[in-house]
Formats: sequence, C-alpha cells, structure tokens
Amino acid sequence: MAITTFKAVSRKLPEGLAVENKVRGFTVIIDEPESLGGTNTGMTPVEVMLMALGSCQCIVAAAFAKAKKINLEEVWVELEGDLDPNGFLRGAEGVRNGFQEVRLKLHLKSDASQEQLENFAAFINSRCPVEDNLSNETPVVSELVVERA
Amino acid sequence: MAITTFKAVSRKLPEGLAVENKVRGFTVIIDEPESLGGTNTGMTPVEVMLMALGSCQCIVAAAFAKAKKINLEEVWVELEGDLDPNGFLRGAEGVRNGFQEVRLKLHLKSDASQEQLENFAAFINSRCPVEDNLSNETPVVSELVVERA
Repeated sequence: MAITTFKAVSRKLPEGLAVENKVRGFTVIIDEPESLGGTNTGMTPVEVMLMALGSCQCIVAAAFAKAKKINLEEVWVELEGDLDPNGFLRGAEGVRNGFQEVRLKLHLKSDASQEQLENFAAFINSRCPVEDNLSNETPVVSELVVERA
Repeated sequence: MAITTFKAVSRKLPEGLAVENKVRGFTVIIDEPESLGGTNTGMTPVEVMLMALGSCQCIVAAAFAKAKKINLEEVWVELEGDLDPNGFLRGAEGVRNGFQEVRLKLHLKSDASQEQLENFAAFINSRCPVEDNLSNETPVVSELVVERA
C-alpha cells in the first residue's frame, strides 16, 4: 500500500467557540464547556485526542486478534490526560500547553492466558498510529492564508 | 486554574471495527473505511487527530482574537497528514505507524495587516494544546486489564 494522505477541514461556526469539522462525508462539532467560554455542544479538542487514541487501540486489537490467535470477546479503553490550563491560557513559563501525561487502561476480555494477553497488549502499543503520533515527535507544518472581505 | 484531568472511554461495538466513544454526555462513533476492514460509519482515528488539531487552532484563534486586537471575521483550517500503512499493517522496518507529517493551512479572514496576522498565527501555534501534543513527545502510560467471562 502506498502512502495515504488523510484530510480534514475545521471551520469555526459564526457564534461562540464551536467548530464544525468535515472529513469525507462525516461532520462532528467540537466545542468548549461554558467554563472555558464555549457552549458545550461537543467534546473539546483534547478530549477528541483521547478518543482518537482509545479508538485506535480498539481497532488495532480487533483487526489483529485473529492473526495473533486471540479469542477477543470484548475490548474497551479508559483514558485520562492531565492538562494545566495555565499553559495555553496564560503562557506560564515551564508549563506545556497540551497533556503532560496520558494514561490508558486497555481492557481485553478473552480466555487467552495472561502471558498471551500481555504480549498482545504490547503488540497493540507497538502498532497503534495515534500512540505513535502522541508519544513521538510529529512535524506539524503550518501555513497562514490571509483572507480579505 | 489547577491541573485538569480529561477522560474518555472507547469501546468496540460487537460487530466489525466500529468504536463507540463516550466523553461526558457526548458519543462519537469512529470506524474504518471498507478498504481497511471497517464499515465506514465514522471517521478513522487518524482523521480524528486531524480534526482535533484543526478545532484547537480555531478555538485558540477565536478565544484570543479580542485580547490581541484582531477583528477576526472567520477562521478555518485545512489539514492533511501523510501515513504509510506499511507501518501499522505490516510493521515494516523504518516506517513509523502514524503520520509522518501533518500540514495545516490556517485561514484568517480579517482586516488586520499582514504582519499582525502573521504574529497572531505564530501566537496560535505557540498556545495550541493539540499541536503541542503532536509536535512534541507526550508520555503515554498503558496498563492492561484482563477481563474474564
């Protein structure tokens, strides 16, 4: 398979902080809670990062279970991320803007042995695209486009 | 403001690769297209990462425009990310699992000067939590929980 380019467009709605996101035929609203100036019509961007990671782990688990001879009855992930708002809100020195740490609990329901499941969990982490992009550096190239009325 | 812990739960649905994600009161389905074994009922996890980044840029722009004396009429972001599926599908040596590069075009519609908008775009990048977590290393701590029937 060749390198694939994925695309998305995010557009702020006229009022408040809510953003309409379009990817192929899908539309998802992302917003902030009222405590952060939004109207709470959707998850926040950092919560969306967490669900991207959890979904990616579930999908890698489900996609590879058969090849790894794991009888996977269920898979779910609990995620947490710690963020100090003094970073992005105030630019406080020494405080990063994003999550300082992300923790996940990967629940695998299966009759496989403990050792088999530990190996399978390590395999999932070794292949998960979103975990790669979070835990390692990913170049983000930003270009400004000035729009005039 | 104190450190805030954000949470999410991702659970694979019984059939296929689709995952139901719950954050506070919000539910979002993430899936894979049929070409990757899914049923295309939602965005993929890596597309979700792109929209998290685009939304974060829009929200930071909207939240800080007034303080930065920018008359921001509209803001939208086009995003692209290149991914080589030989990484996560086959574990090909030297191929990372996630995006190799993410590119974004930040569209700012405003009557502010080019220089003001360049400074504002740089400010947005310097404060965006999702950009921080993608472009810099973020510790991801994973724990396996074995569930028995």
